[in-house]
Amino acid sequence: MKLIADDLKGDILKRVSSIQRYMKEDGMDALLIAGNANIYYTTSRFFRGYVYIPAEGSPIWFVVKPVGFEEEKDVVYIHKPENIPAELERLGLRMPSNIGFEYDSLLYSDVVRLQAVFPSATPKNGSHPIKKARMVKTPWELDRMKEDGIHQSEAYRRVTHCYREDMTDVEFQIEIERILRLEGNLGFIRTSGNLMEINMGSVIAGDNADVPSPYDFSMGGAGVDPALPGGANGTTMKPGETVMVDMSGSFNGYQTDMTRVWRIGEIPEKAYKAHECSRSILRACEKMGRPGVRVADLYDKAIAIAKAEGFDQYFMGHRQKAPFIGHGIGIELNELPVVTAKSRDVLEEGMTIALEPKFVIPSVGAVGVENTYVVTAEGLKPLTVFPEEIQEL
Amino acid sequence: MKLIADDLKGDILKRVSSIQRYMKEDGMDALLIAGNANIYYTTSRFFRGYVYIPAEGSPIWFVVKPVGFEEEKDVVYIHKPENIPAELERLGLRMPSNIGFEYDSLLYSDVVRLQAVFPSATPKNGSHPIKKARMVKTPWELDRMKEDGIHQSEAYRRVTHCYREDMTDVEFQIEIERILRLEGNLGFIRTSGNLMEINMGSVIAGDNADVPSPYDFSMGGAGVDPALPGGANGTTMKPGETVMVDMSGSFNGYQTDMTRVWRIGEIPEKAYKAHECSRSILRACEKMGRPGVRVADLYDKAIAIAKAEGFDQYFMGHRQKAPFIGHGIGIELNELPVVTAKSRDVLEEGMTIALEPKFVIPSVGAVGVENTYVVTAEGLKPLTVFPEEIQEL
Repeated sequence: MKLIADDLKGDILKRVSSIQRYMKEDGMDALLIAGNANIYYTTSRFFRGYVYIPAEGSPIWFVVKPVGFEEEKDVVYIHKPENIPAELERLGLRMPSNIGFEYDSLLYSDVVRLQAVFPSATPKNGSHPIKKARMVKTPWELDRMKEDGIHQSEAYRRVTHCYREDMTDVEFQIEIERILRLEGNLGFIRTSGNLMEINMGSVIAGDNADVPSPYDFSMGGAGVDPALPGGANGTTMKPGETVMVDMSGSFNGYQTDMTRVWRIGEIPEKAYKAHECSRSILRACEKMGRPGVRVADLYDKAIAIAKAEGFDQYFMGHRQKAPFIGHGIGIELNELPVVTAKSRDVLEEGMTIALEPKFVIPSVGAVGVENTYVVTAEGLKPLTVFPEEIQEL
Repeated sequence: MKLIADDLKGDILKRVSSIQRYMKEDGMDALLIAGNANIYYTTSRFFRGYVYIPAEGSPIWFVVKPVGFEEEKDVVYIHKPENIPAELERLGLRMPSNIGFEYDSLLYSDVVRLQAVFPSATPKNGSHPIKKARMVKTPWELDRMKEDGIHQSEAYRRVTHCYREDMTDVEFQIEIERILRLEGNLGFIRTSGNLMEINMGSVIAGDNADVPSPYDFSMGGAGVDPALPGGANGTTMKPGETVMVDMSGSFNGYQTDMTRVWRIGEIPEKAYKAHECSRSILRACEKMGRPGVRVADLYDKAIAIAKAEGFDQYFMGHRQKAPFIGHGIGIELNELPVVTAKSRDVLEEGMTIALEPKFVIPSVGAVGVENTYVVTAEGLKPLTVFPEEIQEL
């Protein structure tokens, strides 16, 4: 259920205030946003242009295109970023003595151009306060992610019906994509940085799970073409193998991340046990995951459980291991915090993280569960509610 | 038909030589590549890491991950870019006095980090020589794009079968996506820069064509969610309207771009005439488009024809106009040259460009044809061969 427009406006104010709080910590005078995800975060709209956030007071939207924002408050149409200083002056705003730019989400040439627009201001890393703010979701954002979880589960309910005997993993994935799209999935996964390229998600059957990834995904897979080496590789799904389904939960500007495992015929006992180990890790993290807990402690706990149960050689990959067991998620698939041994982040109420303790069992396939959670005073609460057991196709 | 491995190696050498020729023009001593598209271009493989191209001699692949490249020639595994100078020294290569980085495809923070790896070298814009080289395709690259055109046409042949009465534009698009995927489409469109976000393409029915885009696409459309404002918006397709199909031609590391128009029931004569005007523009450009011709001349020709036929108010959009009629295409959807009035590029044999003279007719929809072409001595030769007339659904 969408909140009404006024609630959304109030929600956006919360996000901007949060950014301004972190700007203050960094001694930042102003912030000029141009990245797609951050424009959406600070406006819940989408345009090509810039959002100028002063240390105090309302942001100004400098819109290049499209037409159609003329009636909005605090909107100024410009042709190019070089027009911004004159417009600030016209609005009676003082020039910032320093200004932040999105070092971690804009191209080098774009940041250099923007820095030249404010030649007398000291440039700063503006990605920092925005990333920190975006870690903790507002009520409106959490509502969107709850919607995502419901739609994603609704689509996963029909995954079994997508299967026909002797199908390839790609054919299976295509039918799941169709069901997700008919459920309202946008068909596009917004990611941060250059380290992820993916279509609508990943379906990995059998030993393809053991093909290492060049990307920062938890699992690999060869893909069907060397140009996009990830996920399904076009082989026929066989009895005795698992099929891991980790498909997109992007149904609005936000998303959930959920992985479930199906099997074809009988699979070895070891695969079931590793799968149960993944569930034990999730249960332990759900209980531990309260505000104030170090993110790195979740990682260490997961490693300890995998080791205690004798599955550490298969944990987070076999030929190559991913160095994390989860990640923040929201507008982008990969947000802060990253759940690694080295994380310095501490859980806060309203953070959303996907946890994905997974195992690659050679000659069987990948097992394990991924859920997206919100951090609450009582621990991690799942947004992806769907049976976790390995199901038969 | 894929060339054999040795031919591919020779083809990659051609690409590297072309980059080195442009490096020489820019007085560039070395080039360090890290962007996904450029790693694929210079290796026809994909890994996370860096391709170091000296002004003369063979490139070195510095691979971070995945495992599996150990046996290749000139491959060095590293943990992080800071390891590169020591490895160059170990290989007996002299330190570059200046070095290029991909200013136009890497994040600001990534370029700053790489610049610090070579503190004594003058940093340069390395995007320039690569973009220039990538404009002109090699034989192997052209073969991939020919494959794309064949697959895309094969899928478009089945578009009519995707339609059912009272379908929404999104439902129609989903069935086309499925057919494209079953035909081998990778389901992912690689784009350059931050100005494009898209799923598998665009289906625009009726007046949705007149909703302006924040992105650098030729056409707009509201999309189904403000978070991804482009293309189909979920309305039911109605008699008297056109449906423009501009879906992905990404079947390997390369792609073609092709637009065709369908109609529901009868549409006004004006729409047919504007569609024929688009075809006239393409015929004129095909004839003109020989090596040595200015790209801007193609743009001017298109504008002149649209004006002469009295359709200029609808050309390249109605409420908002796109300032181009085409674009280079290859590994990325948007490559050089951009076919604008301001282009300084000149056509060369082997360049590939998509031309998309389109019209938005209010209360009818979008019309026009898009083809992907290769520049030959005889003019532009289409890679997307498919009937151009408006077809009935």
